[in-house]
Amino acid sequence: MTMYDVVGLGNAIVDVISAADDSFLLEHHISKGVMTLIDGSRAEQLCRAVADPQEIAGGSAANTMSGLASFGAKAVFVGKVKADRLGESFQRSLRALGVEYSVEPASGGPPTACCLIVVTPDGHRSMNTFLGASREIGPEDIDAKMIAAAQILYVEGYLWDTPDAKSAIANAIAVAKRAKRRVAFTLSDPFCVARWRDEFRALMADLDILFANEEEAKALFESDDLDRVVQALRLWTGIAVVTRSEKGCVIVRGDDTHVLDAVPVADVLDTTGAGDQFAAGFLYGLTHGKDLAQSGRLGALAAAEVISHYGARPETSLRASALKQGLL
Amino acid sequence: MTMYDVVGLGNAIVDVISAADDSFLLEHHISKGVMTLIDGSRAEQLCRAVADPQEIAGGSAANTMSGLASFGAKAVFVGKVKADRLGESFQRSLRALGVEYSVEPASGGPPTACCLIVVTPDGHRSMNTFLGASREIGPEDIDAKMIAAAQILYVEGYLWDTPDAKSAIANAIAVAKRAKRRVAFTLSDPFCVARWRDEFRALMADLDILFANEEEAKALFESDDLDRVVQALRLWTGIAVVTRSEKGCVIVRGDDTHVLDAVPVADVLDTTGAGDQFAAGFLYGLTHGKDLAQSGRLGALAAAEVISHYGARPETSLRASALKQGLL
Repeated sequence: MTMYDVVGLGNAIVDVISAADDSFLLEHHISKGVMTLIDGSRAEQLCRAVADPQEIAGGSAANTMSGLASFGAKAVFVGKVKADRLGESFQRSLRALGVEYSVEPASGGPPTACCLIVVTPDGHRSMNTFLGASREIGPEDIDAKMIAAAQILYVEGYLWDTPDAKSAIANAIAVAKRAKRRVAFTLSDPFCVARWRDEFRALMADLDILFANEEEAKALFESDDLDRVVQALRLWTGIAVVTRSEKGCVIVRGDDTHVLDAVPVADVLDTTGAGDQFAAGFLYGLTHGKDLAQSGRLGALAAAEVISHYGARPETSLRASALKQGLL
Repeated sequence: MTMYDVVGLGNAIVDVISAADDSFLLEHHISKGVMTLIDGSRAEQLCRAVADPQEIAGGSAANTMSGLASFGAKAVFVGKVKADRLGESFQRSLRALGVEYSVEPASGGPPTACCLIVVTPDGHRSMNTFLGASREIGPEDIDAKMIAAAQILYVEGYLWDTPDAKSAIANAIAVAKRAKRRVAFTLSDPFCVARWRDEFRALMADLDILFANEEEAKALFESDDLDRVVQALRLWTGIAVVTRSEKGCVIVRGDDTHVLDAVPVADVLDTTGAGDQFAAGFLYGLTHGKDLAQSGRLGALAAAEVISHYGARPETSLRASALKQGLL
């Protein structure tokens, strides 16, 4: 008997969102519309500068767990915060989103990770990410009982960064394998794939489900030809989900190939988190008796919801939308 | 021993192209940017009105045969013209494009089919098609020796219109089957599929290769869900090629599914004939020892060439382009 549908392992980041105009970006040397990694002192400085910020639990895998909760799934997140104000904010926010969380906050070391998001009046989001305590995760943070109690272990590639984080992932995968659970991994971004290509390729032997967008999948197989990627995935034993933005997605499990349309969206406002939410819908389907195509349709529905507004988490009940569309 | 790579069966139409401004469209009640079917007297009237027209052999299957010739294939076209000035123009033009043609022109009946294309300064193409003699094709026009001498018989769905044309198609397919040749069919357009859905579905039992764009394929299976179409095609015995414009294409032969990117085009000027040229590239590949993915890449190359300029036939050597891209 499992207690959880999915346990997600990733960077625990608080999104700190505030509105400001372009002069604020200029004054604080923030690159407009992109994501920049920043250090602790700059994070502190920017945190002091922004007015009236909204705080919400973020990070790729945590967003996916939020999406799963919105579908009504039992999702739990594993990631590291510090015992500081933002760390408490992360835990409170994640629980409010319906996701369980019980990792012991670090008492020392760098402060809780945050992503300072400045939204300008033209709707652009300029992101400044300080990874802080999220990089301090280690094998000691892996609760074997919890991993064994979830149908699927889901790991974000962004986490593949420090030796301790890799040990934590290896540890979690070993536990999941012993408990005969499935292991899912998302490639996170093409640069991440470029940095860790050989290690990710080796890791695939242990995976049951791989999420990648088209660019990440092409980077993994070092090909700019989509069909070569699809044919390579066909020889793999797991389920591969390749998302293609408005082109839909391709799902491959051996000879079982599915080609799905994207769900049309009248006004695409902010594509942040589309991949995270696709994964949420797909994993909800897989853990609730749906086949590959049905699960893919749930993924497409969740991705369409999140790109139709600002922000990386669903704003309406994905369960209600899926029921309305006859997908559940 | 075959003498031809592909024999194409379709409407024999002369494209009559001329430049004019919007006031010409208004004066002659021509709907801008769309294709309208017209009758003989209106065709005659418009032919007299246009200034300095350029004439070139057109029609869907004939365009595909032109594309095959541009790849260096031996292609022959079967379609009906009348023994009139435009009929001679059609034959001369088609031969100049490198395609064989030897159907006996009709001595009576309606004049040769033409498509009056008015190109306005903004680049829009307004098309007025008079089907005339092209609809007069019948079983007596099918040269059994020629059909048997081609590796592939290719038929356009647009032709599926009169009882005589259907008899001609049935006759040609029977000859091809007896000679152990492959039969390819293109669905031509979604309205065509809506009109003849049941007959097309029944016809599939005799086909080896089916070309359709996404809308046509969805119309054939009465589904707005691409993956349901893909899964239905997977149960079919032939090769199905579903083209998706800038989304690329999906090729299905049982469990062997290929998902190909479109070839990027900087400036899409005129999408007329993209499907016809995709078919040309794909059929060139199949008749020259290429596998499904390689053939699909040749199709994508040919489609990209034709949408990068005005007009439905290639303007550069597709063979040279394919060699340059390492596809041959």
